[in-house]
Amino acid sequence: MNNQMKHWQHVFKLDPAKEITDDAIEAICLSGTDAIIVGGTDDVTAENVYDLLMRIQRYELPIILEISTMDAIVYGFDYYFIPMVMNSKDKKWMMDIQHEAIKQFRPFIDWQEMVAEGYCILNERAKAYERAACKMPDEDAVIAYADMAEHIFNFPIFYIEYSGTYGSPELVERVKYSLDRTLLFYGGGIASETEAKEMKEHADVIVVGNVIYTNLPSALQTVSAIKGTEKI
Amino acid sequence: MNNQMKHWQHVFKLDPAKEITDDAIEAICLSGTDAIIVGGTDDVTAENVYDLLMRIQRYELPIILEISTMDAIVYGFDYYFIPMVMNSKDKKWMMDIQHEAIKQFRPFIDWQEMVAEGYCILNERAKAYERAACKMPDEDAVIAYADMAEHIFNFPIFYIEYSGTYGSPELVERVKYSLDRTLLFYGGGIASETEAKEMKEHADVIVVGNVIYTNLPSALQTVSAIKGTEKI
Repeated sequence: MNNQMKHWQHVFKLDPAKEITDDAIEAICLSGTDAIIVGGTDDVTAENVYDLLMRIQRYELPIILEISTMDAIVYGFDYYFIPMVMNSKDKKWMMDIQHEAIKQFRPFIDWQEMVAEGYCILNERAKAYERAACKMPDEDAVIAYADMAEHIFNFPIFYIEYSGTYGSPELVERVKYSLDRTLLFYGGGIASETEAKEMKEHADVIVVGNVIYTNLPSALQTVSAIKGTEKI
Repeated sequence: MNNQMKHWQHVFKLDPAKEITDDAIEAICLSGTDAIIVGGTDDVTAENVYDLLMRIQRYELPIILEISTMDAIVYGFDYYFIPMVMNSKDKKWMMDIQHEAIKQFRPFIDWQEMVAEGYCILNERAKAYERAACKMPDEDAVIAYADMAEHIFNFPIFYIEYSGTYGSPELVERVKYSLDRTLLFYGGGIASETEAKEMKEHADVIVVGNVIYTNLPSALQTVSAIKGTEKI
């Protein structure tokens, strides 16, 4: 998995709780993006996750479930991303709910499909920030989380999540500078070619989500913005 | 480091807060043990850690500081073990104090010397259990911690710590069965050849500590008990 991910640049994140047409799904899946992550914060259920899986699995790209609740784990995805919220105040969101899930499901777990993400949620007004009982780290603390993600926890992914807001490219640059093996994912507020290019300069992978539901053409342009030069 | 550790079987743990003669140190360091860990729970200071380091560093074996407090970090050890207490109720002992230390000392950290240990403290009456605000996991929960240590956190070491009491060989056996890459350290209450042999049957490495201070000849026999057969 990690070898495959090393070549990723762009990922779309689809929210199973949001409505989307088959045409939009087709455009997203054929856009040239490297993978589809299915994940959300509110109203994610086994039913809507399964429904979305059925609609996207016909396309030839990796499909990932980002597990946000134990009630909505559905078999059939290529990979399962497990968010470990490093800047939560509560051990629960860093590892205890994950531990409980592993204890319960361990006979069924294929570890080759599991990918741990060191999450750092940096938008105080995001639902995920509140849900996961986060505290706001200063820049040096974010860098130290990245250090831990790579050197202590050996996470394949360190994920800077601004969830709905466009974040600081300077911070993303600093974090990238401190990472070597661990891949840097950036998500949050990317809604244009310019923003996609700016964040992709530093992040290994940019994650584009909300704009899919508000402005599909702009969402699609975030792919060509960063993939365009490859095709020359 | 990990390659070197793979061949370890026995380690002595010296408590910098306890008195020990030079003769005893020499006997310990020349016993055939694979390494010396310096670490304790109470009254560990930079002064007594430094003092102990000076007295053991003349011997030709790896010397490790197991960091229990930021106030007693001393340069000059071969390796630094960083305990991450997986069964703590509080994120502080799992990663937040470690995060704070990394944030503060990061320009000085040589990551090659740092080794993270996934700790599971299983003696409710141990000082370390209370200090680190632990909760008692059932057996399946211990196995799930071991799973996380190996597959989620990629810790080089999973450390079952009974701290002063002799633990359950059956549990150690079950844990070992669920681990593949991550090394299993067992510590707690080993005070005789029989106990050393019994725990070494399952654990990769046994850690012998308290008996050094109460019965040095027995402590030394824990080495020959498990190393004896090698020399044939």
